[in-house]
Amino acid sequence: MNTVEQMKLFMEPASISAIGVSRKTGPGEFNLLQNLVAYGYKGRLYPVNPNATEILGLTAYPDVWAVPETTDVALISLPRELVLQSVAQCMTRGIKAIVIITQGFVDADDERGQQLQQELLSMIRGTGVRILGPNTFGVANAGLKMSSSYIPVPMEVNGVGTVSQTGGTFVGLNDIRLIGKAVDVGDMCDVDIVDALEYYEQDDDTRVIALHIEGMPDARRFLRALERTARSKPVVTLKTGRSERVAEAVQSHTGALTGRDELWDIALREAGATRVADIEELSDALRAFLRLVTPRGDGVGITTYTGGFGIIAADACARSGMELVRFADATMEGLRTLSPEWLGVGNPVDIWPGVSIMGHTRKEMETAALRLVMKDPNVHAAMAVIGAFDAALGHEYLDMIAEMAREHPEKPFVYFMYGEQFRAVKELVESTGTTLAFPTPDRAFRALSHLARRRDWLARRR
Amino acid sequence: MNTVEQMKLFMEPASISAIGVSRKTGPGEFNLLQNLVAYGYKGRLYPVNPNATEILGLTAYPDVWAVPETTDVALISLPRELVLQSVAQCMTRGIKAIVIITQGFVDADDERGQQLQQELLSMIRGTGVRILGPNTFGVANAGLKMSSSYIPVPMEVNGVGTVSQTGGTFVGLNDIRLIGKAVDVGDMCDVDIVDALEYYEQDDDTRVIALHIEGMPDARRFLRALERTARSKPVVTLKTGRSERVAEAVQSHTGALTGRDELWDIALREAGATRVADIEELSDALRAFLRLVTPRGDGVGITTYTGGFGIIAADACARSGMELVRFADATMEGLRTLSPEWLGVGNPVDIWPGVSIMGHTRKEMETAALRLVMKDPNVHAAMAVIGAFDAALGHEYLDMIAEMAREHPEKPFVYFMYGEQFRAVKELVESTGTTLAFPTPDRAFRALSHLARRRDWLARRR
Repeated sequence: MNTVEQMKLFMEPASISAIGVSRKTGPGEFNLLQNLVAYGYKGRLYPVNPNATEILGLTAYPDVWAVPETTDVALISLPRELVLQSVAQCMTRGIKAIVIITQGFVDADDERGQQLQQELLSMIRGTGVRILGPNTFGVANAGLKMSSSYIPVPMEVNGVGTVSQTGGTFVGLNDIRLIGKAVDVGDMCDVDIVDALEYYEQDDDTRVIALHIEGMPDARRFLRALERTARSKPVVTLKTGRSERVAEAVQSHTGALTGRDELWDIALREAGATRVADIEELSDALRAFLRLVTPRGDGVGITTYTGGFGIIAADACARSGMELVRFADATMEGLRTLSPEWLGVGNPVDIWPGVSIMGHTRKEMETAALRLVMKDPNVHAAMAVIGAFDAALGHEYLDMIAEMAREHPEKPFVYFMYGEQFRAVKELVESTGTTLAFPTPDRAFRALSHLARRRDWLARRR
Repeated sequence: MNTVEQMKLFMEPASISAIGVSRKTGPGEFNLLQNLVAYGYKGRLYPVNPNATEILGLTAYPDVWAVPETTDVALISLPRELVLQSVAQCMTRGIKAIVIITQGFVDADDERGQQLQQELLSMIRGTGVRILGPNTFGVANAGLKMSSSYIPVPMEVNGVGTVSQTGGTFVGLNDIRLIGKAVDVGDMCDVDIVDALEYYEQDDDTRVIALHIEGMPDARRFLRALERTARSKPVVTLKTGRSERVAEAVQSHTGALTGRDELWDIALREAGATRVADIEELSDALRAFLRLVTPRGDGVGITTYTGGFGIIAADACARSGMELVRFADATMEGLRTLSPEWLGVGNPVDIWPGVSIMGHTRKEMETAALRLVMKDPNVHAAMAVIGAFDAALGHEYLDMIAEMAREHPEKPFVYFMYGEQFRAVKELVESTGTTLAFPTPDRAFRALSHLARRRDWLARRR
């Protein structure tokens, strides 16, 4: 069995033995079996608990030998002193993929934890059995309605494949569901980030990879795998543990060594990863890779309803490394025709006087101006700066967004949207599937620049 | 009449002449009279329009002479060629405060605009009459339910006083209502940012000032006024127009000159302003000044439910200039008692094993850990890192938040919250009035560091 086949047992299990699940259910019990039942897991599920005959309507078995089949995967959530014995039982039962959820191994502050992890490793060496964890939320697969996390997690078939060294990232952010598919490598006693990358590289369900790293025992092997994966799929990477005091905390969390941050920066960039600084940028970059086309150049055109916010957007454009272009003559002429004579037309172009003075409706003015801007040969990506004052306002944009995507399928188009009704209008415009709305222009241009930098990296590698 | 008295006519008018308001009302007509009626403006309101006898149930007057009183303020929204004549009428009618909403003066690209603005200035010189604008949304005062903006704006009596060079900022952001009170200085032909600062400095309703600057004709006078104001109230400043291409755009927007950005940075810091880079940080800083107490030192303590997100928070703390402290011995001992023996206790402290292994309820564990952290003499500000998976979850925190505010009124306490139910749980915990919740730790620590840096500046000035 090669690595990808082994990983498939974890990621796409047809059957699960859930060892050590409690009879206690209900809110606050963090019962992973209860979660699996609630999701409607599509495979076969066998609780293992010697003190129960039935849990949540499922037959419970005293041990894995009693389970009527050799399951693809076993999930172990037992006190740490009972884990080794349970792993041995799984191995003799023929189970090839074991998730150890239990904490207190290399993540612990005592010698016993280190010792237990060594023993685990000795047990599986050369046997072909793989262990994920310890100290892990395990795996998730939205397509199978399956997650081994004891905290209920929101999943969505969305093309995101997450690999992380913490359950926290795994659990979800505010702007995007990180599962798709997900694997938390935890203490990485055996299955590691490289194994996960190999799986995602081959996996047709995964269009973009979210990678959370704290530290890495074998950076060279990792970077080789990263570079290979990045050739076929974007790998958006959040490397944490930057400061010195933080490096200590990382070590106490997973026992992994963190390196000098500047080295990581260069290494990740060279290997083709999209490095992000925080979870908000992680979410924005993933959304950009899933939703937006990659611009063919760095030129940006902006329409705005207020000069002041146009300038704020232009500032952000400059900071991101994208380029605020000079519009071509034809564009300038067209924009002048739409505007009062006295208006100094430029980029960003203020379209409000076309409404307030020239009497165009907002929709007419915006559509006409954006048509000109999107058509401009210097413009590779466009932004509309709009106020979100009215939740219903998004509707009038839907035709226009569809037109832009149809007429200029090679140019990404995004919104910077201010005002109270941001969330409602954002949802409406994003329902088109071709645009994204951001509450700050910095986030919008940073997301666009991630697309552009990946484009450049791929070009250099060709 | 001194400056503050003049500004009061604009900011707290008992009566308004609205000149040039249209008979057309309804959505999309941007009729400021309609907005004033909808807000329920508490003063007396006189529409002036020679083609109407009544608008929205209010008697309309052919000109300001026909209006039955000399109003505190006149709002002019007429085509630019009719503005001067209207200003002259207002002046002979005895009106001392005139808002010119009309665009096309120094903001225009033609000579006529410059010329008209010069003529305006000559008209009022030495008369004691003040002009706000042209090219302005005017003023707003939530306490009076009054805004002269032709776009309906959300207002709230909240202690924020905004002064801006664009209607856009004026209109509102996503996370905070910028009005309180607000003034958009527009083309700054007469009333300028310094006048607005003088007013806010004296104004008891205003606890924190939001300042948006694009450029400044007399930087020295401005910086002197800023420094005086900053001694009594925080002035959160968004200076835009940073890059060269942007500087061009600014000039076409307001005709104001932008200076070198590095100089602005130093000058603003020395004058005691809290400088922010974008509108998100503006909103976060304002909320921090309104809601949180100022920490007495830079020491930070963090509790977390996941080691990984604790590290992400620690990274952000380091970037912000706040300090992740070593806990005092008593704190460490207490935390060890709550946790399994093998847990490496530190800062951030992972409180999940206390729940999953030691069997404390989440609320017990969190309360006990936070009590220890908040009590630590090295800790001046605390953060709890929590997942927002359940909209009802906020309720269980309310007692705890109240206890922290009661026991440690001198230490700010904030949340970094991840997960799908962010907005609902945020609203709940913020309803206490003493804490704030942020979707990223960077935003939380940046907000705390703004409080700390202002504390340092005030100490140096004493």
